[in-house]
Amino acid sequence: MVKTGKTGGGMSTVEKVELKPVGFVKTEAVGKEVRDKGNVSEIVFREDLAEALDGIEDFSHFFVIFWLHEISEEERRMMKVHPRGRGDMPLLGVFATRTAYRPNAIGLTLVELLGVEGNVVTVRGLDAFDGTPVLDIKPFDYWDMAEDARVPEWWMKLEKERTKKREESK
Amino acid sequence: MVKTGKTGGGMSTVEKVELKPVGFVKTEAVGKEVRDKGNVSEIVFREDLAEALDGIEDFSHFFVIFWLHEISEEERRMMKVHPRGRGDMPLLGVFATRTAYRPNAIGLTLVELLGVEGNVVTVRGLDAFDGTPVLDIKPFDYWDMAEDARVPEWWMKLEKERTKKREESK
Repeated sequence: MVKTGKTGGGMSTVEKVELKPVGFVKTEAVGKEVRDKGNVSEIVFREDLAEALDGIEDFSHFFVIFWLHEISEEERRMMKVHPRGRGDMPLLGVFATRTAYRPNAIGLTLVELLGVEGNVVTVRGLDAFDGTPVLDIKPFDYWDMAEDARVPEWWMKLEKERTKKREESK
Repeated sequence: MVKTGKTGGGMSTVEKVELKPVGFVKTEAVGKEVRDKGNVSEIVFREDLAEALDGIEDFSHFFVIFWLHEISEEERRMMKVHPRGRGDMPLLGVFATRTAYRPNAIGLTLVELLGVEGNVVTVRGLDAFDGTPVLDIKPFDYWDMAEDARVPEWWMKLEKERTKKREESK
């Protein structure tokens, strides 16, 4: 962490932030399989951090903050994308989407906790590839919910398609 | 980003991750005021990223991922804490809490979007001090919700106290 001046007025105080992964994702899922919400993965934490997991098992869900390590520098310079790469969707700023192409290629996913054994936590619903570095986890609580949230029309359209596909594959 | 080997088996693939803030928090709130869910702040994005905000206004809420730049290296080595520093709460691993004392001092908060003007986004409910570096934002959608989430008893106890205090101060 490099400090460049006094805190104040939304001014630059830190030029860069250096993080060390706290663990890595272990999964057999490949390609599109990682997007399946039923996908079960492990998060293998660094052994020196096993103690920091004490009590996580009392939460049913937590957020995983991870580093999309396969995204290139060039992809991180993209400013606009079509959601899911679909030309029939509006062209949007990357911050208005969950695309992996963003200045800091960070992923955020809510997962279900299935079990903890030492430094290994088994989860359902993590859409990250094998070997993905994990930066932090956050237990989910009711402050993370916005029951009355408004989402754009394009999001609802994609969601309807997903639901339809799921029903057809039953 | 330093790659150390092939992806696979939850093994180490990346030793460190270097991030550059995408913006900074601007707020007049000091001390405990930042914890007030009604607190209004601005996120001043880098001017070169203003374009990446296009479309964010169609979401009512988004997550802010920020860097707790005032947390020291020593505080980042803490493994266990009592929630809110209270001795009557259980001693828990830092990953089982939302404490700022964690290996990568990342904050995650759901905020309400109040307005966008150029590279400045006004939000309600961001518990971050003036000058805090912002690493990423994520528009909130219904995949971020776990309506049936289970949280520990200690969390419910703290929440009941908060509700009581809010009602008393009315």
